[in-house]
Amino acid sequence: MKVDGKEMRPIWFDTVSETVKIIDQRFLPHQLIIEDLKTVDDVIRAIKEMYVRGAPLIGATGALGVYVILVQKNNGGADNEYLDAQCRRLKDARPTAMNLFWGVDRVRNATLKETEYDVRVKMALAEALKVIEEEAENCRQIGRHGLALIKDISQRKNGKPVNILTHCNAGWLACIEYGTATAPIYTAFDHGIAVHVWVDETRPLNQGARLTAWELGKHGVPHTVITDNAGGHLMQHGMVDLVIVGTDRTTRAGDVANKIGTYLKALAAKDNNIPFYVALPSSTFDWRITDGLKDIPIEERNPDEIHFVQGLCRGKIQNVRVSPKDTPAANPAFDVTPASLVTGFITERGVCNATESDIMDLFPEKRIE
Amino acid sequence: MKVDGKEMRPIWFDTVSETVKIIDQRFLPHQLIIEDLKTVDDVIRAIKEMYVRGAPLIGATGALGVYVILVQKNNGGADNEYLDAQCRRLKDARPTAMNLFWGVDRVRNATLKETEYDVRVKMALAEALKVIEEEAENCRQIGRHGLALIKDISQRKNGKPVNILTHCNAGWLACIEYGTATAPIYTAFDHGIAVHVWVDETRPLNQGARLTAWELGKHGVPHTVITDNAGGHLMQHGMVDLVIVGTDRTTRAGDVANKIGTYLKALAAKDNNIPFYVALPSSTFDWRITDGLKDIPIEERNPDEIHFVQGLCRGKIQNVRVSPKDTPAANPAFDVTPASLVTGFITERGVCNATESDIMDLFPEKRIE
Repeated sequence: MKVDGKEMRPIWFDTVSETVKIIDQRFLPHQLIIEDLKTVDDVIRAIKEMYVRGAPLIGATGALGVYVILVQKNNGGADNEYLDAQCRRLKDARPTAMNLFWGVDRVRNATLKETEYDVRVKMALAEALKVIEEEAENCRQIGRHGLALIKDISQRKNGKPVNILTHCNAGWLACIEYGTATAPIYTAFDHGIAVHVWVDETRPLNQGARLTAWELGKHGVPHTVITDNAGGHLMQHGMVDLVIVGTDRTTRAGDVANKIGTYLKALAAKDNNIPFYVALPSSTFDWRITDGLKDIPIEERNPDEIHFVQGLCRGKIQNVRVSPKDTPAANPAFDVTPASLVTGFITERGVCNATESDIMDLFPEKRIE
Repeated sequence: MKVDGKEMRPIWFDTVSETVKIIDQRFLPHQLIIEDLKTVDDVIRAIKEMYVRGAPLIGATGALGVYVILVQKNNGGADNEYLDAQCRRLKDARPTAMNLFWGVDRVRNATLKETEYDVRVKMALAEALKVIEEEAENCRQIGRHGLALIKDISQRKNGKPVNILTHCNAGWLACIEYGTATAPIYTAFDHGIAVHVWVDETRPLNQGARLTAWELGKHGVPHTVITDNAGGHLMQHGMVDLVIVGTDRTTRAGDVANKIGTYLKALAAKDNNIPFYVALPSSTFDWRITDGLKDIPIEERNPDEIHFVQGLCRGKIQNVRVSPKDTPAANPAFDVTPASLVTGFITERGVCNATESDIMDLFPEKRIE
């Protein structure tokens, strides 16, 4: 996607320096900082401390992380035992996003049988870059399939702007290109359909106000930031036509783990008969589980993410403390929206209802016989 | 209520200086600043810019505001026409809280027939102080009636802590003493019942993280601050036994206008079979209306309240900007929770269901024959 006229992705392999590079998203929208990931510890830190975030991007970072594991050893002792131990460390960086395990395993598995070190490194890089291009293409397809939903509403509204609410950042910054939740929005906008996006600020880390607003602004998409509290009120007053969110892990039965607060928006959408869609590449499905509330581990993050808010003050990035000193806080990072509240999924293969049988119709190879 | 051992209210009449004094709540919990309200413009500014906030406190400030209107004129032209014009300005300061109109009208009406200036000023002060003492007593009664609800749950849990979620600040800082939503909590705590409060931080102005956490901490009540996004997740996992919130205006049919985001918590409580109570003195009922969504005006506040977050940084109160420069934001301050999502009301006369007939059984003098 373009940032001030320049093509940019949140992660890429720089062929000149032979280095994995990322946007350090912690400082957006105030500063655009690029970092190198040279060691597995760099990669783990970038995932854990959310320099990179968003399920598909965590998956891509994990995939390139396997290449970093190998190249870092420089031919000394990068055997399978070492590789697996480091891959486990990578996969332990964050517990909820499915894509991390998927991305790491895919690259690991692709290189497992190769014993020649140099070939192995090249294979890891090639597979990771393939993962990344495939995920970009998946997001493009999500955009194509989601376009129809927005077009329908636009026609029913006689071309008046379609108001779409989204939570957190499931944009290109969370993916490689296009985003998941934003892919249909960008696609509709590029097709000349009038859209307007309600951007939940998404406490505690404000990925909506910081990242989604920045992305949409750079692309020229009309949008308005709101507090996470406001969506229900807007829905009650007919100001939301459609909700689209991303997901960090979705069960084969359609339960959706996504950024904390998603469940509340799904309840409000249901109460106001507003379609609630979840956009995802199939790498986000956890095909092994059905019950999201029981089986998806929810990350509990540092309470300081709640106590302190980061922003710009007189040209400098500062952290201010909102709550009284010594007040306790709890910081679950995700919640689970039951399939019954989800209108449908927008995947790279098309749109389907949030039921196991409809998901299996799109992904028949995942059927349990 | 006690602050560091000293009895304190958020508003009082200082008999030595003959001045209305308030806590300027904008700087809590970081600084405890006391301000004088000497002119009607001071009073209007204090209400509009939320030096004082919370429906019962806005009502009390409006009541004392009528005294300020009269005393400010110092015997020059404080006729009824002038009084009414200034009362209208006072009542226009904020549109949603019922108590403002109620408090202003009550003191105005009490003094309307008196023509002697000095007597009139004294009557206004006496009536305003009566309003304030009555509202304090109403909150005490709300605590007494709500205690039974908490005691019941405590017994069912064999004395394990009762987890109560609250949104915004409906504590003593929003009232005179005890609070509305917090009155049953303080009363239960003072009776030795184990309670724990989940405090929604309450964006955009963080009245939960700033004020409710401060109040509860000063009183020693166990509590944990959470983002507004987290309540649904906690309810899904059995970590909330009871929700109690305040209200800014409630219709005779039981629709509840309260701080933006309340509706989302009510939906989640319903979805998880958790009792959702609204605590209010009867001054918060708007007896003229039944349909909250249609008839309660929702204040739209300055978008900068969303863009900027205030907090403490290196000992100084600072405002940091979270969103990108020039990003638009919308800031509705309240939403309406339909009566169907409310388990019951806790009033100074007792607890009742959220139906017009049950409310009328408690307040038969408001029946429309």
